[in-house]
Amino acid sequence: MTGLSDKIRAGDHRSIARLITQVENDAPEAVQTMKQIHPFTGKASVIGMTGVMGSGKSSLIYELALAYRIQNKKVGIIAIDPTSPFTGGALLGDRIRMIDLSSDEGVFIRSMGTRGMMGGLTSALYDVVEILDAAGMDIILIETVGVGQDEVDIVKIADTTLVVLIPGLGDSVQTIKAGLMEIADIFVVNKADKPGIEQTVAELESLVDLVNNPERRIPIVATSAKEKKGIEQLITQITEHQLYLKKSQRFEQRRRQRYEAELIEIIRKRLMDFIFDEKKLKTTVDCCIDQIAKKQLDPYTAADQILGKILK
Amino acid sequence: MTGLSDKIRAGDHRSIARLITQVENDAPEAVQTMKQIHPFTGKASVIGMTGVMGSGKSSLIYELALAYRIQNKKVGIIAIDPTSPFTGGALLGDRIRMIDLSSDEGVFIRSMGTRGMMGGLTSALYDVVEILDAAGMDIILIETVGVGQDEVDIVKIADTTLVVLIPGLGDSVQTIKAGLMEIADIFVVNKADKPGIEQTVAELESLVDLVNNPERRIPIVATSAKEKKGIEQLITQITEHQLYLKKSQRFEQRRRQRYEAELIEIIRKRLMDFIFDEKKLKTTVDCCIDQIAKKQLDPYTAADQILGKILK
Repeated sequence: MTGLSDKIRAGDHRSIARLITQVENDAPEAVQTMKQIHPFTGKASVIGMTGVMGSGKSSLIYELALAYRIQNKKVGIIAIDPTSPFTGGALLGDRIRMIDLSSDEGVFIRSMGTRGMMGGLTSALYDVVEILDAAGMDIILIETVGVGQDEVDIVKIADTTLVVLIPGLGDSVQTIKAGLMEIADIFVVNKADKPGIEQTVAELESLVDLVNNPERRIPIVATSAKEKKGIEQLITQITEHQLYLKKSQRFEQRRRQRYEAELIEIIRKRLMDFIFDEKKLKTTVDCCIDQIAKKQLDPYTAADQILGKILK
Repeated sequence: MTGLSDKIRAGDHRSIARLITQVENDAPEAVQTMKQIHPFTGKASVIGMTGVMGSGKSSLIYELALAYRIQNKKVGIIAIDPTSPFTGGALLGDRIRMIDLSSDEGVFIRSMGTRGMMGGLTSALYDVVEILDAAGMDIILIETVGVGQDEVDIVKIADTTLVVLIPGLGDSVQTIKAGLMEIADIFVVNKADKPGIEQTVAELESLVDLVNNPERRIPIVATSAKEKKGIEQLITQITEHQLYLKKSQRFEQRRRQRYEAELIEIIRKRLMDFIFDEKKLKTTVDCCIDQIAKKQLDPYTAADQILGKILK
């Protein structure tokens, strides 16, 4: 097993893929390797990208990756799929273009599902970020879909979070109001070739003005992945945001936040495994649920009984 | 405290509101009352409604509530707000019309935020459903926004889940592919007065045909909350779905699923409180995060150390 962590540190793609599969499958042997690589992490810039479906995030990731490759930076891409059993990974079609990136030794691409028992981004995501970081990726791009808890979670992992919008999205302002405002380090208005771009940017400008941060105004970058426009400006803004973080000590704070979220996630997962996988306890839990359904027991008393069996 | 549970069972609005506030604030005195009311729950039909922002869910909830009131049914409404600190509850404007419902003694309306430390629907939601159920509500309508984990969670709570779409939503098919298909018990195409309704319904019909359930085809109901059309058909489909659940023993299964999710949530919450609120342990956790950030310790070993302190 020692060999695997060395190969990952050397950037070997097959070894990276192997460890990722192990953590996704909760393979017990993954833990040892994860422990071994941790000291070699923390160098990669982690960039999260979120926005509604159809906003062209995949194309934007592709263009960003190409641009970083020109700077000779190694790029890891993690695409979070809201996997459906009906489609088996809905957005595969969008990612076909990624194939020509995947033949580049300096790029590693991985799709991950979101389906976890307890919600939020899959707990393996923290591990995958550490793996790509230890493997020497300079930039880790994480793409996630939707508006909801996933975004809140990506903020815990990313150093810089990009919120992608598109022109003419009637409810764009409402969407932003509903929680994206506090998530965005940079707003990206993609599909800048489409009509309505000025209005969307103007709406965003006035919203950004409401945020009271004298040190930094959230920048708004118009891009067209299709016409390859605005990508350099976006990279400049990402770099400037990371400089800002480092200057203002917010960088350490964000990293601590990521480690805290990761630690909580590991603890949560181990406790839940303990409660639901351990044979004897599983019987207790199932029996409690029966009694709750029959109104012979209430959920709070049941929780106390189960916790009493496991806590010191 | 005994008095509170009795008043709730009598349907007293102020007492209902008081207990909900207690559970939202994690007040320790709430637990006793929750235990007392549990035997009197399980009678209400719980209907979840989800869909993108701007699909008119609030108006639809309003019309459904009115229609159920004509049938003399008591209605509880829970609106899940993706709360933003910038706006303090984004969708308040949409809900102003709810005010004339709120003067009706047979209707109880409550907005809840989604912001929990660990994601997903706020853990208090399970409690609020139990409270409204014990208070004699015949119908509990839960409205949630967005595409993501929240929907997956609502399925665990609701007996019947409505997925609301609107005509002309370009990426509607993609949205459905991305996970809504397995959530929907009924598809609602709202804003049926708008152009594109036929196409959206046709798209849905062909998607629904892909689902292989010989016992039941997912119905598609076109509604216009604005023109008050399709509401009766929707209520008929909800009733039929619940009859189907009861006939096929799936009803018990769904209820068990809800109680299991609730129990897991209470256990998770208590464990997390234990780890992060208990003073001595908090120091350990903070110290671990410091060491992780300095690469003196890895997250897995840290998790083991913390768990070793609390588990039997």
